[in-house]
Amino acid sequence: MSTPCGVPAEDLAPGMSASFSKTITEADIVLFAGVTGDVNAIHLDEEYAAGTAFGGRIAHGLLSAGLISATLANRLPGPGTVYLAQTLAFRAPVRPGDTVTATVTVKSVSVEKRRVVLDTWCTVGGRRVVEGEATVLAPVGRPLAARQDSSPQPVI
Amino acid sequence: MSTPCGVPAEDLAPGMSASFSKTITEADIVLFAGVTGDVNAIHLDEEYAAGTAFGGRIAHGLLSAGLISATLANRLPGPGTVYLAQTLAFRAPVRPGDTVTATVTVKSVSVEKRRVVLDTWCTVGGRRVVEGEATVLAPVGRPLAARQDSSPQPVI
Repeated sequence: MSTPCGVPAEDLAPGMSASFSKTITEADIVLFAGVTGDVNAIHLDEEYAAGTAFGGRIAHGLLSAGLISATLANRLPGPGTVYLAQTLAFRAPVRPGDTVTATVTVKSVSVEKRRVVLDTWCTVGGRRVVEGEATVLAPVGRPLAARQDSSPQPVI
Repeated sequence: MSTPCGVPAEDLAPGMSASFSKTITEADIVLFAGVTGDVNAIHLDEEYAAGTAFGGRIAHGLLSAGLISATLANRLPGPGTVYLAQTLAFRAPVRPGDTVTATVTVKSVSVEKRRVVLDTWCTVGGRRVVEGEATVLAPVGRPLAARQDSSPQPVI
């Protein structure tokens, strides 16, 4: 059992930021198509995609958006975060082999409600490919559950 | 090479609707975590998740959203659709084994710009779990590329 250790609302402030990068491989695109059922030819069919304005296959927009979800869940606010809402504008294509960097920046915090609004975007080579805004519930200010370990504990 | 055969903007009208259902398996959740990097304990760690308000693991919100993307790409407007924007509110948890039904309904169409706005939502057992709005570019009114086949064609 992992213990959430994200940043609680009372420790968050506008301007705090975190990023996460991942290279989007062909395997990612194939698996994303399988788990979602989105088999759009623009993602899977190079012969078709080469004839479109994109000039070749592109990744699902929501696959890049998933890196925003990852940044929120893993880094800021981090473990214990609950995802409430997300807006997304898909600005430019992401191609197999592109490294996507997702960035989240705190816009506003309601400590009482634990509610946090963040600017969120993804870039490839510095160019914004996805933009939007996330609303999350920040982790509570103490571990949600203590680690329960049956092994002997060191006495300090 | 597949040939897009979705519904062009001039054939779309407010109220037109389509759905797509998929059971969200544990494999889907594990693979979604892998392709996005979102390893939030609430999705992967049953011991931790059992101690939260959710009472057990839940699927990534963007995994259910992926079924909206699938409905747009596969059914309405269908093949040839380009995804421009999506808003999402995550209303209720989706658990491993739940069957999610995504529904998209045309709200407005700009034939000149090929731009279509759709109400989009996902349900589990009739309860809305995700709600939002999609903006897409509808397929063009003719096949984007004709099928090129090197095999002899029948003469009719």
